[in-house]
This record gives sequence, structure tokens and C-alpha cells, in this order.
Amino acid sequence: MKRRLLLVSNSTLHGGGYLDHCQQNISHFFGKDVKRVLFVPYALHDRDAYTKTARDKFQTLGYEVDGIHEAPDPVGAVRKAEAIFIGGGNTFRLLKSLYDNKVVSEIRRRVLEDGVPYMGSSAGTNVSTISINTTNDMPIVYPPSFSAIGLVPFNINPHYLDPNPNSRHMGGLREGSMLLVEGNKATLLGTTKARLFTRGKPSVEYDPGSDLSFLLTH
Amino acid sequence: MKRRLLLVSNSTLHGGGYLDHCQQNISHFFGKDVKRVLFVPYALHDRDAYTKTARDKFQTLGYEVDGIHEAPDPVGAVRKAEAIFIGGGNTFRLLKSLYDNKVVSEIRRRVLEDGVPYMGSSAGTNVSTISINTTNDMPIVYPPSFSAIGLVPFNINPHYLDPNPNSRHMGGLREGSMLLVEGNKATLLGTTKARLFTRGKPSVEYDPGSDLSFLLTH
Repeated sequence: MKRRLLLVSNSTLHGGGYLDHCQQNISHFFGKDVKRVLFVPYALHDRDAYTKTARDKFQTLGYEVDGIHEAPDPVGAVRKAEAIFIGGGNTFRLLKSLYDNKVVSEIRRRVLEDGVPYMGSSAGTNVSTISINTTNDMPIVYPPSFSAIGLVPFNINPHYLDPNPNSRHMGGLREGSMLLVEGNKATLLGTTKARLFTRGKPSVEYDPGSDLSFLLTH
Repeated sequence: MKRRLLLVSNSTLHGGGYLDHCQQNISHFFGKDVKRVLFVPYALHDRDAYTKTARDKFQTLGYEVDGIHEAPDPVGAVRKAEAIFIGGGNTFRLLKSLYDNKVVSEIRRRVLEDGVPYMGSSAGTNVSTISINTTNDMPIVYPPSFSAIGLVPFNINPHYLDPNPNSRHMGGLREGSMLLVEGNKATLLGTTKARLFTRGKPSVEYDPGSDLSFLLTH
């Protein structure tokens, strides 16, 4: 499997600028071959302003950004994307827009079959997993399903704060942490630990640098 | 309209026992005529244990409790209920179970047409409004709709904590506060202020005792 994912918990970290805390990881991840990144701003209301924010940041890293909402055909835009970045905001609004624009399965196909690198931040990390069942966001709109893009076979709770004994979710990414997935290898990156929840087992803390590949095999 | 509602933000308040902080309001609300309360424990997984908790508390106040899940026919149980109490837990689980058991419209009919008193706590307050769009809970299951019982024409966010400038929800009930609705009269009760959000207007704080009847007329 060609899958390459960079799943970031949060886009800004205590006072830093947009994506500052993970910019080296972004440059590493997309590398020199990628020239243009398809940005999906569906999680926020003002798509133009959001795309400008992403574009300004990515240009400092040497990448051009295309907003998916600027393309006449969103599915076509996914079909020819070199790289995909889905930004944060409201997870329900994001997933509903992904379904409304019929790009869920095409993004999955491009990432899992064609190896197009996928970066997600916050809500964009949530929708990369099997479902949005572990979002902290308010359900401001009703998506046709809670099933998501399904690039990994577990759930992630971005902005993870406190252990909740009633929760069954699979993983908590604290602010400052991110998950790098390359094929069947998963590595925890960033500056904070992450917490793994597995039903029927005690939760476990993992340090940055930990190999979490076992999460990809069930 | 005969509607009588007691909508409580939270069932336990900083260290107190279950429903201790609002027990006088409960006695006032159900009064002497009500003998039995139909309890809806759908928001928690262990319905028997939850019903026992409610039963033990209500017995100290002079009311018998029937768990709706103990009845062979939930719709029939609603049809003959003297009073209804929907407890808190996970709002998504609660609303899905209400739909699965086909009791949403029957509860609405009994409360709005027959004047059966309705008490809600937390998730039970959420589902009494027009929709669950302002819940803080995790979407652990997928209900067939976010539309709720619709006993009032606005949203409530129980356990309200912080102003969120991106939110459009209509009202925040802080822990310790509750809303009493009698026909077309609404009164804020409890020990904490509540905050009203209206789209396009500045949010407004209301003290306990405030008349909020204007919320019922739009």
C-alpha cells in the first residue's frame, strides 16, 4: 500500500502562527517532487479567506495551493491532485461538504491506490479516519453518514485533553502531536505524547517517535 | 398550550448527590398530583442501573419511577405516562434510541397536547429542543436526524462553559441553572446565570428569575 499521511492534531500551537509548529514536518512530508497542493477548506464557512491563509503559509515552504472550491469540478480536481491537504474547522460541516461534493471515495482512491500524499489538520485529521465518531465539535449540520474517508482503520481525537473513562475512541492526539503514516508504518511525531484507547484494555501513553504501525493491521 | 417543562442543565453539581441541587424544583414541578414518573434512561448504556439511580432519588421525593425500557411497549408507556423524565448521558445515543423506539412524536404529543409534565437533565434537556445541534457530546452513534422532540422553538447548550464566537446556538445553560416552561411562560431558575445567543446580535446574560418567555414566541 502506497499510503502516505501526515495527520496533525492542530494547526496553531499556543501563540505560534498557522502551521508553524509542524512546518518542518510538512516540508519533509511533501518533499521536492510536489509542486502544488490541493487544499480543501470545507471545514470553515469562508473558503476563500481560509484558502488564502493556507496559500500564504505553503508558499513560504515552496508549494503552490489550489482551493478545491475554485475548481469547476471538485472530483476532477482530486483526480489530478499531486497532494491533498484538508484543513480544520467544524468536522460535521467538513464531512457533509465532502459528501455533498462527492469527493470522499475519490480522495480515498487517490491516497490508497495512487499514493497521493494526504495531510490533515484537526477536522482534516478526523475525516481521514474510519469515522468522525470521536470529534469534539458541535454537530451544526447533519452529514449523510459519520463514516469518513477511511485512510486508517482507527479513530483519532485531535486536540485531545483529558481521559474520559466512558469513551471508546481509539486514540487521542494532543495539541502539538501528529501521526506520520507511510504504507504500513505509523510513527508518532511532534512534541507531545499521545494516548491510545482500545476497548477492554487500559489506555496507553506513547512518546513522540513511537512506532504505532500495529494500529494499521487490525 | 398546556406545555410544562423543567429543563435542567446538569444532574449533579460539584460534589452534590444526584439531582440534589434541583430537588425542590422537582417537587414543585411535579407537585402532589403526580404519583408515577416515566423515566427514559436511553442516554446511558446500563439502563437498569440508571433507572435504579433515578428511582432511589425520586422515591425520597415521594414519586414512583417506571423505566421505559421495562415496559413491553415504549409507545404505550408514553401514552399512559403521568409525567416524563429523560435523564442525561450521551445525546446521540439518547436521540437514536428515542427514534429507534418510535417515541419522539408520542412524547411531543403528550407534552404539548395533553400537558404531561416533562423534565429533562443535560442530554434530556438537549433532546427537548428543536434539535441536538448544540450538544457538546461525542457523536458515538448516528441518529436518523438531528431534529429532536421540539418542545421549545430554540436550542439549549447544557453544561455551558465559555463564549464561543463561532457558535450560533441559541442558549447556554450553565451548570446549576434550569429553565421552567409553563405554557407560553419561560423562567430561568437555579443558581447561575444563563447566556442567550441570537444570530446577528450580541449575546446577553440573564440572571436566575429572569422571564424568558419571548424565546417561545418566534
